[in-house]
Amino acid sequence: MTYCVGLRLDRGIVFASDTRTNAGVDNVSIFKKMHIWERKGERLLVLLSAGNLSVTQSVVSLLNERLHLAADGSEPSLMTVETMFQAARLVGQTVREALADQDEAARENPGLFSASFIFGGQIEGDIHRLFLIYQEGNFIEATKDTPYFQIGEHKYGKPILDRVTVAPMRMGEAAKLVLISFDSTLRSNLSVGLPIDLLIYRKDTLTIGEQRRIEAEDPYFRKLSHAWSEALRDAFARIDEYEALDAGGPPPISLVPSKPPAKEEA
Amino acid sequence: MTYCVGLRLDRGIVFASDTRTNAGVDNVSIFKKMHIWERKGERLLVLLSAGNLSVTQSVVSLLNERLHLAADGSEPSLMTVETMFQAARLVGQTVREALADQDEAARENPGLFSASFIFGGQIEGDIHRLFLIYQEGNFIEATKDTPYFQIGEHKYGKPILDRVTVAPMRMGEAAKLVLISFDSTLRSNLSVGLPIDLLIYRKDTLTIGEQRRIEAEDPYFRKLSHAWSEALRDAFARIDEYEALDAGGPPPISLVPSKPPAKEEA
Repeated sequence: MTYCVGLRLDRGIVFASDTRTNAGVDNVSIFKKMHIWERKGERLLVLLSAGNLSVTQSVVSLLNERLHLAADGSEPSLMTVETMFQAARLVGQTVREALADQDEAARENPGLFSASFIFGGQIEGDIHRLFLIYQEGNFIEATKDTPYFQIGEHKYGKPILDRVTVAPMRMGEAAKLVLISFDSTLRSNLSVGLPIDLLIYRKDTLTIGEQRRIEAEDPYFRKLSHAWSEALRDAFARIDEYEALDAGGPPPISLVPSKPPAKEEA
Repeated sequence: MTYCVGLRLDRGIVFASDTRTNAGVDNVSIFKKMHIWERKGERLLVLLSAGNLSVTQSVVSLLNERLHLAADGSEPSLMTVETMFQAARLVGQTVREALADQDEAARENPGLFSASFIFGGQIEGDIHRLFLIYQEGNFIEATKDTPYFQIGEHKYGKPILDRVTVAPMRMGEAAKLVLISFDSTLRSNLSVGLPIDLLIYRKDTLTIGEQRRIEAEDPYFRKLSHAWSEALRDAFARIDEYEALDAGGPPPISLVPSKPPAKEEA
């Protein structure tokens, strides 16, 4: 499995992805799931991928090949599209193309070739935007109401995102939030693993704000992980205990069997 | 979907189940998923169920029918078995029996007739025990290392159980923990809904310690839900923000295409 998050805030976008892939529990590898295209001052595009690795790698390879093919401008590429919407469309088309190669195999093994993507960034003249791209090639965009997307093993890390995310957050707060969401996921699911790739994009800079690979021994992540555990236990301890009340609710089913009527002695 | 939890502690067992069933999002109902068999001072057995409602209801009906059929003692029933292990075996056999009725339909729709159960309690002369029973009828037992089981929509509520559960907990603490785990699940997943059925069993009492249906307006649950939100936000705020560092990590793919060699003017 995989866990990736993208958080679109007023001030920019935070992207994070884990790096574990597995084919069964005894075949675990590290693969980068964050792919970046940048031309400083003009555009920064980030793609996070989850699902079948052969499909997601094909998508990235096709996008990269198109950069060169399209150098004459005859075909759109991530380098030539003029808006984030057009970039997301291009990624969607490329996903369809990559899956078409597996068409026959996919019909025989539905679900095997699943893939999903978080795609975001900014192109000069457009605002910073974030999309969730499905394997069918269609996509949705993050809004103020739902400023984040998750792909992969998303459930463990969702409660804290649901509670804390607000569009006006500082970028440092958002990065902390994303890492806490990862920490919860890492603890509960073996198929999501360190290191984490983290990228912070500050709007209108049109360049990577910060990019970092967070390893198990990363001092900030260790401190955060420890502090969050402590804080949760503290928070738990500070809430009133459940006080016993008298038994209520519907009565249990009686275990005394209804006897067959015995022949009464007269 | 469903969310049920059983927590086996040194001092007893806490059971909780939600009550929402749905067939699609426009067909939502309330069904009790907690089933209790009690003979005060002699045995208390609790079954929590998740999965296809027709299957789980069949299991409970078969178990109840057997109580009467077995009144002559010729066949084991939940009333006559002498250990928790035998009781769990009986439930497992009953699950197989209920599924056998749907055998043909199940082959055509694998996955449709899934079901799983948490089963626990105590029988005089045996200790209090907790089991997770699969739809194949086999089962596993909770131990000190893994003192809880969840069935249904379990992921959202797992991180807090993972962090806080310890066997020597007080029962009031354990009930609080279970309700917090429910609160996280309710917030993140629409298919799990109030009211919650809660049952506290104190070991060796061989009777229901407390049974309660927690509705949306339950004062303790509302207070807990609010306090937990506040505590989480507080905990989050108290952790140091991520501090921006210089960009690190592998360099992004350059967007500048490698040009085909142009014919040089000599």
